[in-house]
Amino acid sequence: QVIASRSGDLISFAAGYPDPAGFPWEEFRAIASELLSGKDGSVLQYGPTRGYRPLIESILGVLEKRGIKADLTEVMTTSGSQQGLDLTARVLIAPGDVVLVEVPTYTGAIAAFRNAQCRLVGVRQDADGINLEDLDASCMRERKAGSRVNLLYLVPNFQNPAGILLSLEKRQRLLEWAERRNMLIVEDDPYGELYFEDVATAAETRPLKADDRHGRVIYLSTFSKTLAPGFRVAWVAAPAPIVERFYTAKQSMDLMCGILDQRVVHQSIARGVLDRQAAPLRKLYRDRRDVMEQTLRDQFGDRLSWIKPKGGFFLWAQLPDGFEDIALLEKAMEQGVLFVIGSAFCVDGSGHGRVRLSFSWPAPDRIREGAARLARAMMPTPVA
Amino acid sequence: QVIASRSGDLISFAAGYPDPAGFPWEEFRAIASELLSGKDGSVLQYGPTRGYRPLIESILGVLEKRGIKADLTEVMTTSGSQQGLDLTARVLIAPGDVVLVEVPTYTGAIAAFRNAQCRLVGVRQDADGINLEDLDASCMRERKAGSRVNLLYLVPNFQNPAGILLSLEKRQRLLEWAERRNMLIVEDDPYGELYFEDVATAAETRPLKADDRHGRVIYLSTFSKTLAPGFRVAWVAAPAPIVERFYTAKQSMDLMCGILDQRVVHQSIARGVLDRQAAPLRKLYRDRRDVMEQTLRDQFGDRLSWIKPKGGFFLWAQLPDGFEDIALLEKAMEQGVLFVIGSAFCVDGSGHGRVRLSFSWPAPDRIREGAARLARAMMPTPVA
Repeated sequence: QVIASRSGDLISFAAGYPDPAGFPWEEFRAIASELLSGKDGSVLQYGPTRGYRPLIESILGVLEKRGIKADLTEVMTTSGSQQGLDLTARVLIAPGDVVLVEVPTYTGAIAAFRNAQCRLVGVRQDADGINLEDLDASCMRERKAGSRVNLLYLVPNFQNPAGILLSLEKRQRLLEWAERRNMLIVEDDPYGELYFEDVATAAETRPLKADDRHGRVIYLSTFSKTLAPGFRVAWVAAPAPIVERFYTAKQSMDLMCGILDQRVVHQSIARGVLDRQAAPLRKLYRDRRDVMEQTLRDQFGDRLSWIKPKGGFFLWAQLPDGFEDIALLEKAMEQGVLFVIGSAFCVDGSGHGRVRLSFSWPAPDRIREGAARLARAMMPTPVA
Repeated sequence: QVIASRSGDLISFAAGYPDPAGFPWEEFRAIASELLSGKDGSVLQYGPTRGYRPLIESILGVLEKRGIKADLTEVMTTSGSQQGLDLTARVLIAPGDVVLVEVPTYTGAIAAFRNAQCRLVGVRQDADGINLEDLDASCMRERKAGSRVNLLYLVPNFQNPAGILLSLEKRQRLLEWAERRNMLIVEDDPYGELYFEDVATAAETRPLKADDRHGRVIYLSTFSKTLAPGFRVAWVAAPAPIVERFYTAKQSMDLMCGILDQRVVHQSIARGVLDRQAAPLRKLYRDRRDVMEQTLRDQFGDRLSWIKPKGGFFLWAQLPDGFEDIALLEKAMEQGVLFVIGSAFCVDGSGHGRVRLSFSWPAPDRIREGAARLARAMMPTPVA
């Protein structure tokens, strides 16, 4: 209601949307036009549940560039990575199970896992990613208490919401830990390509899946951030028996992903569009981050703090003492600016002193204006 | 394996695919080209879970033509009607519930409902649709035995697989029955537009939902048969509280349907493409049915029997005594022709004397050749 009343001039740091100015429109248009010539009827026909085979083969190539060797039996398309999370929840989680997640973690994963009636147990996060001591302690404590614990969910690259990059050393130790503790890891990687070259390298985004010698990792990734989210084309790479079970489940969920979308994505890979996207997008979002950081410093000095995002879409800001996320959101909406409250990302009841600010979508001048509005929202209420 | 070894010349009466020759390619191409101009970034952006609002408004118009008055709170897009079935199963069925279905019924519904760990109880079918006496008896018998029974699934128009049209009189009685017995009806209507004018009228396809004054009907329909299945754009029309719960569930399932697809479908409705499709498609599939029926009569005389399909894609053939669906399928595959075994559609273990033959996809000469192969598969094995 508050939003509706503000006559449209709302600045959103809430939505984790890519900037449509970064979509390769011309190429999509040419590809769609060719595909829709009608010469090939299968372009709009029912298609296979696992995905359009040439697309899957292209995905194997995308994976290989990330260090992951997989074959056709280990990959399946999903309708967004959200469906990968939903499949994981439906196929691998039984009611009453404990699932380990970072604090904070992605809200979509929280929702999907909660649907499976599991209990989510939060694990602390350091500046270089999940805290391994807390992870193991949480796992063992829950197991000793009689819970079934066999799944860890995390976003190693430029985490949503914290923007954090998991260190390479921790990645190795996580794989060893998963093997030792007989755990599966759901590795959600939408942002790996979008590292910022002033503070991160491609090598540092190497997926856990690349070194997964024991079939411990379910790897989710997507074209939503590098091509466009509207296509709903994402994929899972996992051990073949897990993919087989996902496939069976997907058959009764939606039969298949949109086939025209899959064909457009396939052609975008085959024609090099995807590869050409990466560098400009890295620059686009790095520039946005720079504007966001500079503006927040200008507006707030040291009253806000955060860990510098090394990639991705998000800045996870710590509010000054005495500010609370929900109350601040109400004031912010009055000023015409939106963010996501920190507590939404925290399964342990914490996060009320945090806000997630997305810098991916608003143009630089909107980021500056939005930050100014946020600053006004944080001004003390005048005594009447 | 048998299929793979047949060097590609396989005739399929199995797949319920529309004929791609009936897709409005030129219109789709023009629409996609305009949408992908890049002028409107939202064409490929994340979109609302309920669906692209102008599309939903168009769907209200489609519904109105079918006699259904609904508003924005009562409609939601789904990724194929299969997702509507999955949402129904997830939101409305608890483990151990009994769900009533026709014998035979659609396999995708069987799969979706079984996933919710319900028990499916079959109800007999007459030439004019579900047998109401058996329906009520089954419902009351299960309730007396202590089961929770509150859902009936059916396909009133040109049922998959039986091709049967539910009579108008039974539709009214079903609504009264649902009210009296406090039941919800899932009305799955993919084929309603595809009535064959020699034996059916538009008036006879009037959805139960059109006369649903007590909020008893969850209506599922799709553009897969009238535009193209590759878009994965379908919808549900149901009481607002149910749609609200479906919406919440879909948020954690896949966030949204493909937005470009939704926009193409919306433009197809707005520009009259959808309306212009109906008459030629009715003729296309009616001609196919005629070829299928004539060919089966030529090949089999009265050894095969069926109820004449009044619309849709399917002919549900009764095999001669002594033939069994699974054994026949093996022989048929050797001859290079496919169908779906009757028992796959029957939750009570019956159907082994039946096969579902789809006439929607193969061209007339392929239908003739396929029927000849089927006849060869049914020849007695020569004694050595």
